[in-house]
Amino acid sequence: MTTTQLSLEEIYLIALKALKAAGADEHNASAVADIVMKAERDGSHSHGLFRMPGYVASLQSGKVNGQANPELHVRTPVVLHCDGDLGYAPLAHQRSLGKLAKAATSNGVATLSITRTHHFAALWPETEALAEQGLVAITCVSYLPNVAPFGSHEKLFGTNPIAFAWPRPNDSPVVFDMATAAMAMGDVQIAARDGKTVPEGTGLNADGNETTDAAEIIKGMLLPFGGYKGSHIAMMIELLAGPLVGETTSFRSQKRDSGDGGPPRGGQFILAINPELLSAGNWHDEGEAFLDRLSGLDGTRLPGKRRYQNRLNLGPREINTELLKKIGVAV
Amino acid sequence: MTTTQLSLEEIYLIALKALKAAGADEHNASAVADIVMKAERDGSHSHGLFRMPGYVASLQSGKVNGQANPELHVRTPVVLHCDGDLGYAPLAHQRSLGKLAKAATSNGVATLSITRTHHFAALWPETEALAEQGLVAITCVSYLPNVAPFGSHEKLFGTNPIAFAWPRPNDSPVVFDMATAAMAMGDVQIAARDGKTVPEGTGLNADGNETTDAAEIIKGMLLPFGGYKGSHIAMMIELLAGPLVGETTSFRSQKRDSGDGGPPRGGQFILAINPELLSAGNWHDEGEAFLDRLSGLDGTRLPGKRRYQNRLNLGPREINTELLKKIGVAV
Repeated sequence: MTTTQLSLEEIYLIALKALKAAGADEHNASAVADIVMKAERDGSHSHGLFRMPGYVASLQSGKVNGQANPELHVRTPVVLHCDGDLGYAPLAHQRSLGKLAKAATSNGVATLSITRTHHFAALWPETEALAEQGLVAITCVSYLPNVAPFGSHEKLFGTNPIAFAWPRPNDSPVVFDMATAAMAMGDVQIAARDGKTVPEGTGLNADGNETTDAAEIIKGMLLPFGGYKGSHIAMMIELLAGPLVGETTSFRSQKRDSGDGGPPRGGQFILAINPELLSAGNWHDEGEAFLDRLSGLDGTRLPGKRRYQNRLNLGPREINTELLKKIGVAV
Repeated sequence: MTTTQLSLEEIYLIALKALKAAGADEHNASAVADIVMKAERDGSHSHGLFRMPGYVASLQSGKVNGQANPELHVRTPVVLHCDGDLGYAPLAHQRSLGKLAKAATSNGVATLSITRTHHFAALWPETEALAEQGLVAITCVSYLPNVAPFGSHEKLFGTNPIAFAWPRPNDSPVVFDMATAAMAMGDVQIAARDGKTVPEGTGLNADGNETTDAAEIIKGMLLPFGGYKGSHIAMMIELLAGPLVGETTSFRSQKRDSGDGGPPRGGQFILAINPELLSAGNWHDEGEAFLDRLSGLDGTRLPGKRRYQNRLNLGPREINTELLKKIGVAV
């Protein structure tokens, strides 16, 4: 794979220009470009520039609104709703996460439901932002049906990621962000592009038989992680990110999707909790004692650590040259 | 295995008498006996009479308070706290779930933190009770360290179950209740008792090597379900059921535990959400469309269905005769 070195600033500008050329206004384009840059910064390549062709296609097809003006509605002091106005999710986040944090901080718990949105990014940024304000955060989204429920041979679940963040007053938050598919579709796509195989149990071919050929899985379907238990978690995410917030589940999202290669319209569920209020103040020592013990075990690492380490590198990133040609924007 | 037929009433009375003989008052004994009977009724044997020796031992040792008087504190309109007064959890539930349901129904979301409690039962009853009032519910507890975090060979996590319930206005709720260990310790204990092996990936022996011998795993440790992803979920549960609610994580719970064979003192986190408020009323059709599709797939079954089917049988249950001798209470 040939790569090209690009600074974080250049990555941001490439994304910004490509989004604006595809019809996004400054607000929408800069919110998405920032998220794309942060993914590359943190080493999360499958959510970085790799996503640009999909972002651009969905703006060009008219499915995604590049002039979206997301609006926040306060349904109760602890139930916030953001109408995404059919745009990409990052602008909706910019306009509503601060208010969610405020509601959770003062009341102890609050939810943010986002509807009519297109989420095509990693989930950790939302939870990390909340944890950096001292809150425990959970979020999930569904997607297009790519995953066969445990025991079946038919796609129904999305890859359905869930992210969780735990604040640490004197350290970076502990954050995990994982697909409930055995592997994220972005990683299967990268393996297929690079001609690599994937581990057994990742997915089934179009006939419903197990395969380790990434390209066959793309034509077929993924499996949930962890058998029936992972399948339960994927089911829960469908319900939380869809019906609970007033949006569709993956298979119904697909029915109205244009198939332009970008993300479907769907919902997002975000929960924020103030540990100071729930624990009456003694959450910190117990949490730290546990995390110190966990991170001290041979063979373990706290989730999110690698992202923070990558972030310390302010230098250029290696970007796939073929991908840059495909995006087609000069730096 | 020799079994004895007992009616549900007889199961309840055996549990009640054994608990009272061990020092529990009527309120505490009846709350636990009811949960034990319901587990047998629903076919959840590892949470039924099988638990009685542990319940009794922890009352006799004085670790668990058989005269517990759990008290509810309202920290904010959506943050409820119940001090379990060192008793078993069921009485705390009886006294606080109704108020949690009320808070979630009117505000949209609410949490219940239970501290200084001993949870030795299944988790589905709490979430099912909330879902039957039209709420989405999630709960989790930690336990004693029995599970090695992914990649390590040292026990740190409890078997850490999580339960989720989704209400269905015209049907029984969808409810899953699962250990985040590859297998619940109760099921490993039953396999060991019956001389059966367990699937690969269930656990490690005391030297940290994989084994399918249930007795060796009891001496060694369990593994999380689903590799590193299941390990993340187990970590999240430690943090939610411990520090978040003002209680300890599994390894610190063990440090103050008497080792009497019963459950350690710990915490419980319960979240309840009103889908009517979050979705602005359109959660039902989307949820039903998804659940109909899921339950219609070959090879799948909605979680909780088997429990509801077992419940329709009002007849006697087959109880292990050796176990009854061990409990030692005449019907």
